[in-house]
This record gives sequence, structure tokens and C-alpha cells, in this order.
Amino acid sequence: CSGCTYIVVPHTAPPCKKAAICSYGATLLPCEPSDEARAKVAAQTVQDTRGVLVHPNQEPAVMAGQGTIALEVLQQVPMVNALVVPVGGGGMIAGMAVAVKALRPDVKVFAAEPCKADDCYQSKLRGELTPNPHAPETIADSVKTSIGENTWPVIRDLVDEVLVVTEEEIKAATRLVWERMKLLIEPTAGVGVAAVLSQRFQSVPREVENVCIVLCGGNANLEALEWLEGSQGH
Amino acid sequence: CSGCTYIVVPHTAPPCKKAAICSYGATLLPCEPSDEARAKVAAQTVQDTRGVLVHPNQEPAVMAGQGTIALEVLQQVPMVNALVVPVGGGGMIAGMAVAVKALRPDVKVFAAEPCKADDCYQSKLRGELTPNPHAPETIADSVKTSIGENTWPVIRDLVDEVLVVTEEEIKAATRLVWERMKLLIEPTAGVGVAAVLSQRFQSVPREVENVCIVLCGGNANLEALEWLEGSQGH
Repeated sequence: CSGCTYIVVPHTAPPCKKAAICSYGATLLPCEPSDEARAKVAAQTVQDTRGVLVHPNQEPAVMAGQGTIALEVLQQVPMVNALVVPVGGGGMIAGMAVAVKALRPDVKVFAAEPCKADDCYQSKLRGELTPNPHAPETIADSVKTSIGENTWPVIRDLVDEVLVVTEEEIKAATRLVWERMKLLIEPTAGVGVAAVLSQRFQSVPREVENVCIVLCGGNANLEALEWLEGSQGH
Repeated sequence: CSGCTYIVVPHTAPPCKKAAICSYGATLLPCEPSDEARAKVAAQTVQDTRGVLVHPNQEPAVMAGQGTIALEVLQQVPMVNALVVPVGGGGMIAGMAVAVKALRPDVKVFAAEPCKADDCYQSKLRGELTPNPHAPETIADSVKTSIGENTWPVIRDLVDEVLVVTEEEIKAATRLVWERMKLLIEPTAGVGVAAVLSQRFQSVPREVENVCIVLCGGNANLEALEWLEGSQGH
């Protein structure tokens, strides 16, 4: 088969994400929800199809592509003092950090992460790559994956701080964006908003006035909205 | 009391709408869900507070203000061939129709309305103002109200056609916008999208290529999302 695209996806991913992948014409390959299982199915598929692996976050071209988000931010909002970027595999924040620290080293780069999937926080704390010990359970499904060999050195050297947030904070922030900005972000995008709204962010130096949060996805699972109950956005 | 704002709202309005009104500092005055009850409470409040009535859709200044939406559309999308506007009291479509027919009479103006609250459709059909006979039951809560004395003549003379849509069409269109545009519109805004997606819109002349739908509100009730079940957006 030539010209085919196979996407390896944990079978626990939200149905809306799987449906979107299929509707764009790709073939879905389900795997168990772990980085190892995903790597194994991907490697086997590359072999079977004589394909080319495009890793979603450790591929340097993907990281560079996501770095262009930072270029757009600097162009559109030159008065920015800080970027806040949710971190899963770390491709987006690594690419953005490379771009922004090259052009505007004064701009702070914050990673935002669920407490329940805090491999980036742990890695920075210990000074060595420390993947999540087991598949994390968080509503922010897009950052369940761990940072890796290619993103870790960039994050280690260029990310200023990692902010961790609770599940409740993620839900409240996501709901706030839904209700007041009318943007249907997915909870993973709410991680960045939650980080900026958190008590901990108050300790960020005062010169950080203009903060840019990357709302990094909108594949909210409309089949499972029980989390809305009890969360208060406004 | 001076400098106070009282908003008369049917007690059946979504909690999110009431909460937003209060959080902006206004005083909420609940009324029964009918145009008559609302007018009565409003008149009494004007008398008690020596206030000024600002009608949400029959007030000419409100209509003119909403007409500026059409000015923005013509400025930003000069190649537009048609406007599609959900109609409740008709202030928005009347204001927009006045503006667009003065500047660009070639642009078609379509009203969009739920079958279950089709007073505008009935009025155009009969050639006389025909309010909804009783409080309509539709998920599009912002267009439950009927067109009135000031909006009717404008709608009669300047609106090209009224498109009516079913509850199922409204739900599917709203969900589509949520899932694919990532915009948390309220079902009332989905009425316009549903009209354009409907079979009936296919009979619109071919020269209507560029259609502008006004997404007229984002107060979706996140406490009552049962309608999402069974509706298919994608």
C-alpha cells in the first residue's frame, strides 16, 4: 500500500478523536494505553508497510513545526512576557522554547502538567529523564504520555519552570473557558489555564504581565461530560 | 435607586444566563415565561423605579445597534451573497436587514426559526403580525419570543425568506459547530446553521454562494446537555 497513513492510538482515547482521525482518511491502529505498547505497534507497522515513522513529539521536524507557534505569538503579541504550554511528550513546548529563547530570551517558558502525570516536573526536579511510572489517570488525556529522549534535553535547558495542577483545577479552568470564552477546548488545553489561575502562579515575578497560554486542542469528548457536574467555571 | 439595571427574565431561562446577568452587576427580576408576563413586570418596574424601558428587540436603538453586525459583515466579507439570522423578537434581523438592503440590496436576508416557534414564518405567510399562540417549547430558548410591532414591518418588507428547522436539525447543527469549529454556541445560534444545512436551503438560487450565518449567542446551558445524546454532529 502506498500513500496510506496509519495512526497508532491507545484504545482508551476519546471516541471523538478516533472518529476525527478516520474521517480525515487515515487508518486507525489501536494499542494498549502505554508508551511501550504504542512504540511496539508503531515499529511493527513501519516494518510491515515499509513505512516511515513520524513520532508525535520526539520527531525533530514535528518539534520544529510546533515551534512556529512561538513565532506567531512573537509576531502577533510582541509584548508577551511568558508562554504557558501543556506538556505531554513535550514536542510543542520544546519547539516553542527553542524558538522563543533564540529570539527573545527574556520571555519565560512555563510547562503545565497534571499532578497525576507529572513526569516533566519530576524530571526537572531530579535533573534526569523520569517517565511516568505507569499509565496516568487524568482527564487531560493528551498529556498522559511522557517526555522523551529528544524533548528532555531541550526542556531541561530552556523551560524555566513546571507548574502542576490538580484534576479539579483542570476541570474548573476548562469549564471557565467554555462558559466565558465560548471555546470548546479539551481538558488538556485547560491545564495551561489552570496553571495560570493557580495559587502557585502568584509567586511568578511581577514583571510577567502578559501571559500567553497555548490552548492546544479541542477534541473534547462530548460523550463523557460527567466531569462538568460539580465543577464551577464562573 | 439610581444607576441600577433590572433585567426581566423568564424563570425558565437557563441558569447560566441568569448567573451571567448577576455577575455583570444587574438585578434579576424573574417573570412567567410569556411575552405578556414579561411586559407586565417590566412596566411595573419602570413605574416603581421611575426607570427607562429598554426593550430587547422592539427598541429602535437596539435594532440599529444590532444592524452594525451587517456593517461589519459587509466590511469584512464584501463577497457575501446572503445573511442567515435566527429570529426571536426580530431586533437583530430587522436592524441587519435595514443596513444591508440600504447598502447592498443584492444580498439576500434569510430568517431562521424553529418549527416550534414559527411566528415569523406564519406572519410572512399571512401578511400580518401573528405571534406564537402560546409559549413555545424549543431548545432554542433565545428565540421563544415573538416578533413585535416595530420589527414586523421591517421583516415584512426586507426579509427575503423564513427558513424553519426541526429540533433535531437544531441539535445536530449545534453539535457540529461544537465538534468541528470548537465554538460553544448555544442552540439558538445553531438554528441558523441548521437552516443552511437543511434540504430546503438547497432550493436557494445558485448565485447565493457565500453565506454568512450569525452565531448569535453562546449561553449554552452546561447543566442540561442530555440533548447531545443521540444527536450526531459529524
